[in-house]
Amino acid sequence: MNRGKVLELLGADWTRMTELIRSALVSDVPLANEINDGILAHPGKLLRPMISLLLARCCGALTPAGIRYAAAAELLHNATLIHDDVADDSSQRRGMPTLRSLVGPRAAVLVGDYWLARAVELMMGEGDDPQALRLLSALLVKMAEGEILQLQKAESCDTDEADYLRIISCKTASLFAFTGETAARSAAAPQPLAEAARAYAEAFGMAFQIRDDILDYCGEDSGKPVGQDLAERKITLPLIGALRGSDREADIRARVHGIPAHPEDRAYVRDFVLEHGGIAYARERLEEYVGEALRALEALPDTPERESLAEIARYNSFRNV
Amino acid sequence: MNRGKVLELLGADWTRMTELIRSALVSDVPLANEINDGILAHPGKLLRPMISLLLARCCGALTPAGIRYAAAAELLHNATLIHDDVADDSSQRRGMPTLRSLVGPRAAVLVGDYWLARAVELMMGEGDDPQALRLLSALLVKMAEGEILQLQKAESCDTDEADYLRIISCKTASLFAFTGETAARSAAAPQPLAEAARAYAEAFGMAFQIRDDILDYCGEDSGKPVGQDLAERKITLPLIGALRGSDREADIRARVHGIPAHPEDRAYVRDFVLEHGGIAYARERLEEYVGEALRALEALPDTPERESLAEIARYNSFRNV
Repeated sequence: MNRGKVLELLGADWTRMTELIRSALVSDVPLANEINDGILAHPGKLLRPMISLLLARCCGALTPAGIRYAAAAELLHNATLIHDDVADDSSQRRGMPTLRSLVGPRAAVLVGDYWLARAVELMMGEGDDPQALRLLSALLVKMAEGEILQLQKAESCDTDEADYLRIISCKTASLFAFTGETAARSAAAPQPLAEAARAYAEAFGMAFQIRDDILDYCGEDSGKPVGQDLAERKITLPLIGALRGSDREADIRARVHGIPAHPEDRAYVRDFVLEHGGIAYARERLEEYVGEALRALEALPDTPERESLAEIARYNSFRNV
Repeated sequence: MNRGKVLELLGADWTRMTELIRSALVSDVPLANEINDGILAHPGKLLRPMISLLLARCCGALTPAGIRYAAAAELLHNATLIHDDVADDSSQRRGMPTLRSLVGPRAAVLVGDYWLARAVELMMGEGDDPQALRLLSALLVKMAEGEILQLQKAESCDTDEADYLRIISCKTASLFAFTGETAARSAAAPQPLAEAARAYAEAFGMAFQIRDDILDYCGEDSGKPVGQDLAERKITLPLIGALRGSDREADIRARVHGIPAHPEDRAYVRDFVLEHGGIAYARERLEEYVGEALRALEALPDTPERESLAEIARYNSFRNV
C-alpha cells in the first residue's frame, strides 16, 4: 500500500484528524499528558481513521462529525490495545515496549480508561447523532464480550471455526464495522452506500485479523514475534485449518491446553500447523473476506478514495507488519 | 442508617433497579455470566443507586429513565472498583477477595470494560437525553483523570489540601454528583430542585471519601484493613491535617515517599497522624461537607425520601464499613 499517496489524497482532513486526536487527549493532569505524548510519539498505522475518512468521502462528504468519528475510532482502538497489554502482561508490541512495561499496569489500566473516556466524549460532539451513540455502546459491549469469549476458549481449548469467527468479529471486525457505519452516518449517506461502507469495513476487519493470526505463525521474517497466540492458548484459524480432518485433533488440542506447563509444545503444534496446510487454509479464508470487501466497494462511486480502499484491502493479504 | 427502612420506602422501584442491573449484565458469553454472577452475589451497599432513586423521587417522579440511571451509576462504580483493584494489585476489598484475585488480572480488566460498556448502554435507553450522555462522557474523563492525578501525586508526595480535594472530587464525588444530576433530569425537575439534588450528592460524595480516608487510619475495630493508603503513598486528609503548621513536614513527606523501600515507616507516619490531630482535622472537614449536603436538602420537598437522604448523610459520619 502506498501510504504516502493515501495521506496526500486525504490532505488537510488527515491533518485535522490527527490534530483532533492530540487535542482531544489534552488533560489538566500533567502525568496524563506525559504518558499520552509518549504514546502519540509512535502513532502506529492509524488504519481505522484512514479507512473512516476514505469511506466518509466515498459516502458523499467528510464533515466535522466524520473527522470526530475517525479520531474516536483510533482512541477506542488504542484504549483496547492498552488494556489488552495489561491483561496479557505483554512487554512488547510492534517491537516497542508496551505502555504497561513503561509505566506499570496501574497507570496503564487508568490511561486505557482515559482514552476510552475521551473517545466517548468525541462521539458526543455538537449535534450528536443518537444512533451513532447507540452504535458506540453496542460496540463497547461487543468488544468486551469478544475478549472474554477468547479468554473462555483459551481455558477450554475447544475453539472451532465458528467460535473463532465470532471472536474476531467481536474483538476486531466490530470496530472496523463501526467506522464504516459512523462514517456513512456522518456523511448522511443513502442506505445502499451506508450498507456498502459497513460491509467493506467489516469484511476488511475480518481479513485484517486473519492476516495477524497468520503472521503469528510465520511472520518471523519481518521481525515480528511469532507463537504469541499459542503461548496464550489462543486457537486461531491456521491451527483450525490444519486440524480439519486430522486424526491427531485430540492430541493437538490437549497439547495446546498444556502449553503453560510444557512450553516446548509450542514448537510441536506450530510444526503441525505448517506441515498440515494450516497457513494455506487461513489464506483462502482471508482471500474470501478480501473479495467480500472489494465487492462491497462496487456500490460506492468510482473515485480515488475507493481505489485507495481497494488497495488497502489487497495490501492486507501480503503485509508483514 | 436504617437500610431496611429505606429499601421498604423504595419498595418495588428498588426491586426494579436491582433486577435491571442483573438483566443489563446478561451476556451471550458463559464466562462473562459466571463472573458477573459471582460479583452480584456480594452486591455491596448499593449506595449510589439508593441515593439516585431517592433524589429522583424528591425531584418529582421516579421514571423508567431514573431507574436506568440509578443502575448505570452502580455499574460504573463497579467498573472502576474492578479496574482499581487490577491497578492496585489488591487481593481483598471489604474483606472479600477481589475479582482480580479470583479470576486473574486479565479477565478482571476485560470484565471492568464489560461493566462500563453495559453502563454506557443503560444510559442510552429509549428517548435518550443528550445532556445526560454529555454528563456521562464528562464523568468518565473526570474519574480517569482523578485516578491518574492520584498516581502522579503518589510519586511526588507533595499532595496539599487543594490537590486532595481535587482528587476526591474527581474520583469519588463526581460519580455521586452525576447520580444527582441525572436523577433530576430523569424527573424533569425544575432548576432549583436539580441544583439541590446535585449539590447534595456532590457534598455527600466528598464526605463519603473523607470518611473512607479516616477509616484507613483508624478503622481497625471494624476489621477493615488500615494503612492501605500509606502503603500506596496516598497522602489523604488526616495526614494533611496533621502536617498543618508542623516543622516535621519535610521529614514526614520524605518518609511517605520512601515507604516502598521502608514499609516500617507506615507505622511511624500513622502515629504522627494520630498524635497530631489529623483525625480531628479530617472529621471537621467531613462535618462541613455533611452540613453542606443537609443544607442542600432544604430546597427539596419535605418527604420521607428527603429524610432518608438526611439520615444517609448523617450516618456517614459514623459508619465503620
